Amino acid sequence: MNYNEIFDQAIDRLHSEGRYRVFIDILRNKGAYPNARCFAGHNGPKPITVWCSNDYLAMGQHPKVVEAMEQALHDVGAGSGGTRNIGGNTHYHVDLESELADLHDKEQALLFTSGYVSNDTTLATLGKLLPGCVIFSDELNHASMIAGIRNSGCEKRVWRHNDLAHLEELLEATPLDTPKLIAFESVYSMDGDVAPIHAICDLADRYNALTYLDEVHAVGMYGPRGGGISERDQAADRITIIEGTLGKAFGVMGGYIATDAKIIDCIRSYAPGFIFTTSLSPVLVAGVLASVRHLKSSSVEREGQQAAAATLKTLMREAGLPVMDSTTHIVPLMVGDPVKAKRISDILLAEYGVYVQPINFPTVPRGTERLRFTPGPAHSESMMRDLTSALVEIWDRLELRLAA
Amino acid sequence: MNYNEIFDQAIDRLHSEGRYRVFIDILRNKGAYPNARCFAGHNGPKPITVWCSNDYLAMGQHPKVVEAMEQALHDVGAGSGGTRNIGGNTHYHVDLESELADLHDKEQALLFTSGYVSNDTTLATLGKLLPGCVIFSDELNHASMIAGIRNSGCEKRVWRHNDLAHLEELLEATPLDTPKLIAFESVYSMDGDVAPIHAICDLADRYNALTYLDEVHAVGMYGPRGGGISERDQAADRITIIEGTLGKAFGVMGGYIATDAKIIDCIRSYAPGFIFTTSLSPVLVAGVLASVRHLKSSSVEREGQQAAAATLKTLMREAGLPVMDSTTHIVPLMVGDPVKAKRISDILLAEYGVYVQPINFPTVPRGTERLRFTPGPAHSESMMRDLTSALVEIWDRLELRLAA
Repeated sequence: MNYNEIFDQAIDRLHSEGRYRVFIDILRNKGAYPNARCFAGHNGPKPITVWCSNDYLAMGQHPKVVEAMEQALHDVGAGSGGTRNIGGNTHYHVDLESELADLHDKEQALLFTSGYVSNDTTLATLGKLLPGCVIFSDELNHASMIAGIRNSGCEKRVWRHNDLAHLEELLEATPLDTPKLIAFESVYSMDGDVAPIHAICDLADRYNALTYLDEVHAVGMYGPRGGGISERDQAADRITIIEGTLGKAFGVMGGYIATDAKIIDCIRSYAPGFIFTTSLSPVLVAGVLASVRHLKSSSVEREGQQAAAATLKTLMREAGLPVMDSTTHIVPLMVGDPVKAKRISDILLAEYGVYVQPINFPTVPRGTERLRFTPGPAHSESMMRDLTSALVEIWDRLELRLAA
Repeated sequence: MNYNEIFDQAIDRLHSEGRYRVFIDILRNKGAYPNARCFAGHNGPKPITVWCSNDYLAMGQHPKVVEAMEQALHDVGAGSGGTRNIGGNTHYHVDLESELADLHDKEQALLFTSGYVSNDTTLATLGKLLPGCVIFSDELNHASMIAGIRNSGCEKRVWRHNDLAHLEELLEATPLDTPKLIAFESVYSMDGDVAPIHAICDLADRYNALTYLDEVHAVGMYGPRGGGISERDQAADRITIIEGTLGKAFGVMGGYIATDAKIIDCIRSYAPGFIFTTSLSPVLVAGVLASVRHLKSSSVEREGQQAAAATLKTLMREAGLPVMDSTTHIVPLMVGDPVKAKRISDILLAEYGVYVQPINFPTVPRGTERLRFTPGPAHSESMMRDLTSALVEIWDRLELRLAA
């Protein structure tokens, strides 16, 4: 039994597939986002422009957020010091849960240490509480939902991405008195497309299924108050559980669900990933409170982001770059090969000071490797023109195909 | 299919077993720890003393930690904005991983969003990488380790708590060429006892097993530099993977592992709970860096904690209170009934301003419900005398048994 050999082989597989990951070591410059500095090992410390952050609206740098965090830090200190049940339930947590319940017009909300954990432990626990439950999962659901569904021990039916006929076919084939849960996302983060929420809820009604909607790439960014696509489409009241993150548009860290009081009571009482972990730092929670409150009343950030995404897509399309169909703020550029995607990313960083990470397996299916740009309100049109020219030059250099 | 009925029944089960949890809503007063304030619903807002925090050394309030967090907040902002691979790898993360590797004298370390996640995803991933691996697990291992072992899909052998003969029996019954992993904790947090690390490593050597040691209730508090029981016992080099938390003695939030470079490379490349989640906020990471560095060179906090724990145990024992055998900083008082444990805790809070949470199932086995005190360097002897008197009065009032 040679353990080292096994570990070596596991690493070798990544190299041979061209998907060994190199983490780019950066620090953002507060007040000058999307500017940042990149550390040694990537041609020395130098200024870069970040094009792949999920701090979509730059709320992580917003004065209200920073001020709220500073105040909490000085009022109560760094960490919560315990689980929610044992010493780690601060008044900030209680307030933020009310704020998030209100955001989605639900009875209650519950915080988790991350969006990953909220999906994993909520889905696993729901599935265990509902005897014989069958979970219907969109094929492009995030890894954290897949983990939760597997950990639930439930039978799983995977429907083709956003394919309502296929979903209905699977629902129809399951007995009416079997508990059912339909799990899907609103914005699919690697493709940038959107789920037909109302149509899925129609099916849920017809087949008496609960619904679980992951809105992590939508909260803060869609709907008049940032309640996500379910708010924009006026469908929030039709969804059983809405799940969101505090680490993307809200700019900080953490995850949550919003739903009926009795479901919250079940999850907080039965979910191991909620019970057995130190609660979110009150400093983070205070920052999120400020962020959620701000984005409930301010639409400037959302509008700036939509305008930036539209501009970048147009510029790329006009230049013949293979920008994928996306109806949201996400701008994915298809490459289709892990080695080439990494090569483009490396050139952009080394020669142009542009930081965009190549996206490879297991984040996207093999053969669909891509670059994924997330322009926000702070990316100027001139930055976008520079970026587009750089991409065209590199496409040319690597003899990749541009549209006519 | 009536979903509401199922959720109602799940909540009813908790009430009928007397283990429905009420989260106590508090804010700590920075600079005056263990003092805090408790919010409405528990006899109105009022000052309390916290006796159940896992911010064991009050590092969450340490000026160096607070200052480092404030500086990071102003330098780079609130959140990391991405996964470690996609935009969320800040220079703070890189620095902290070096610092933690050094703390345990290992080649490398890897950060996770929590200790729970580090156990869950590391054990699950290790188990999947090692074909046919059998995992040997102490029966009192934490829920997060149990989750990781289950999610690994490996065969599991549970050995009786700290029972070396039983562990050897199970190892012996497994073929020598089968990959093996022994997973255990150094300090068991609900009982306060310690694992015989060297003896377990002797068995690991004899049967060619890897070892995984959870030191979450030991890092920062044991060993000359806070490297945990494995440092105190000079056994760190015999352990394959040491896992720790940043949310207890280090006072902030997050988790990590420290081990060989090639194992780190495997985990960061294959573990879904590491890959698919927004990385720790750089503000938290900066705070932890200051905390770890401080506790590497300062032993005042550790000594103060050990002295406080010894004093409280003596006072309780002298008063005839059923303090459990603990050789560490944890002071558990056995009650053995969930309703009584909650009643004592309620009286302490309402009448004495003492906050100690009752510990019930699933955190401890049914029938071993307890109160768990965590005195630290900031709890004075007069606070402890007051606490002991209050407990004796309540024990008397509820007609519980005191030792002669």
